[in-house]
Amino acid sequence: MTETTSPALDIALAYYRAWTSHDLDQAMSYVADEIVCDAPAGRLQGAPAYRGFMTPFVQMLTGSTLIAAFGDDTTAVVMYDTETVPVKSAPGAECVTVTDGKITYSRFIFDRLPFEAARQAAGRPAS
Amino acid sequence: MTETTSPALDIALAYYRAWTSHDLDQAMSYVADEIVCDAPAGRLQGAPAYRGFMTPFVQMLTGSTLIAAFGDDTTAVVMYDTETVPVKSAPGAECVTVTDGKITYSRFIFDRLPFEAARQAAGRPAS
Repeated sequence: MTETTSPALDIALAYYRAWTSHDLDQAMSYVADEIVCDAPAGRLQGAPAYRGFMTPFVQMLTGSTLIAAFGDDTTAVVMYDTETVPVKSAPGAECVTVTDGKITYSRFIFDRLPFEAARQAAGRPAS
Repeated sequence: MTETTSPALDIALAYYRAWTSHDLDQAMSYVADEIVCDAPAGRLQGAPAYRGFMTPFVQMLTGSTLIAAFGDDTTAVVMYDTETVPVKSAPGAECVTVTDGKITYSRFIFDRLPFEAARQAAGRPAS
């Protein structure tokens, strides 16, 4: 794991450590009310929408490993692998903008295909 | 776009600039013969396999924008958005290890789902 320190990275890592510890309340304390997140399925706007996006993911999370973390004063990139109930290796990458100690923007990349395959295998409708 | 400089990042960015300019020969000059790449579909081993993976992607690439780039002596993370013929916004993130000026390892994240959807819409068999 590669890691540097920076003001933005401190927040990004505190956020990462909170949600990977299943503490979504703590995680959301690092997220701005007006967060904008460009996720694979589209844009999420506002903390309630963002929390609604993260909640089912955190519920099925069984493990995580930090791959790399870099940042500067305002921007941080965190890459990690996660283990979830339906998908054993689900890596993700986030590039966040931090303003006044809160994440105001996130570009979030992960592969939806194995989650979609697991959903279809379980016979569940598209969410 | 956020960018720092580092020995590993110099190589990662030179590689990025080459493949996004459709110059795969130049891009491969930054890739070690024994590269290992953990991509969404699984592990690729060796430069020929890696080039075989990149070739169809570069052929359908119509544009790219660097989102963030950070690195240190041995590791770099590059996040970007790409525009391709089948998928108008296909962001990706790579975390690369650089040894003796060549990329020896890459962890590569992108969302395969829109490419799969485009493939199905076009009635093409799974590749």
